[in-house]
Amino acid sequence: MKAVTRITFFNENQEKFFGEGPCRLLHAIEETGSLRSAALSMGMAYTKALKILNNAEHSLGFPLTCRAAGGKNGGGSLLTPQGKEWLKRYEQYRDACIHANEALYLEFFPEQQ
Amino acid sequence: MKAVTRITFFNENQEKFFGEGPCRLLHAIEETGSLRSAALSMGMAYTKALKILNNAEHSLGFPLTCRAAGGKNGGGSLLTPQGKEWLKRYEQYRDACIHANEALYLEFFPEQQ
Repeated sequence: MKAVTRITFFNENQEKFFGEGPCRLLHAIEETGSLRSAALSMGMAYTKALKILNNAEHSLGFPLTCRAAGGKNGGGSLLTPQGKEWLKRYEQYRDACIHANEALYLEFFPEQQ
Repeated sequence: MKAVTRITFFNENQEKFFGEGPCRLLHAIEETGSLRSAALSMGMAYTKALKILNNAEHSLGFPLTCRAAGGKNGGGSLLTPQGKEWLKRYEQYRDACIHANEALYLEFFPEQQ
């Protein structure tokens, strides 16, 4: 057996606004340069991806992506500097929690090693 | 904002078998003395509660509850000594993780204090 840690961020209204789903979505936007392509690559509806993004941005109070509408290639999305910084801090915190909880697992379930 | 930690136990087949739901179910069995009443108190179907219990017991390899079928009062369920011990260890581990992750939160998100 193993114990898995999940970290979820909640806003002041006790609503989830960030966790592994939004984290993967931001990485997919970085890779594809487009919210539509990012959603597609995750098998997610574009409207759902947009909702996740708007919800996170509204809770954080700053933009995670900047969108260029239209243009020859149909526009696209990039992470803002604040978006990159938030993603990095989220992942560093999540990884530190996973690491700490794995150390605690060895302590509480020594017979599982 | 705040960060919430959830701990979930997986078995060798990468299937979830224990977390907050099963933990609450075991407490409800302790309080009501019956799986049926416990399920009812959680607004959960009896068959779902039974499935959760069987799945956890199968993954752990020991019984969490012992059932007395029939009898004047329709039987009932009690936690086994192993069941009580598992519940206690799960909660101690979970609480240690939450505590450690809250300390990390202060470190990674100092401006949120």
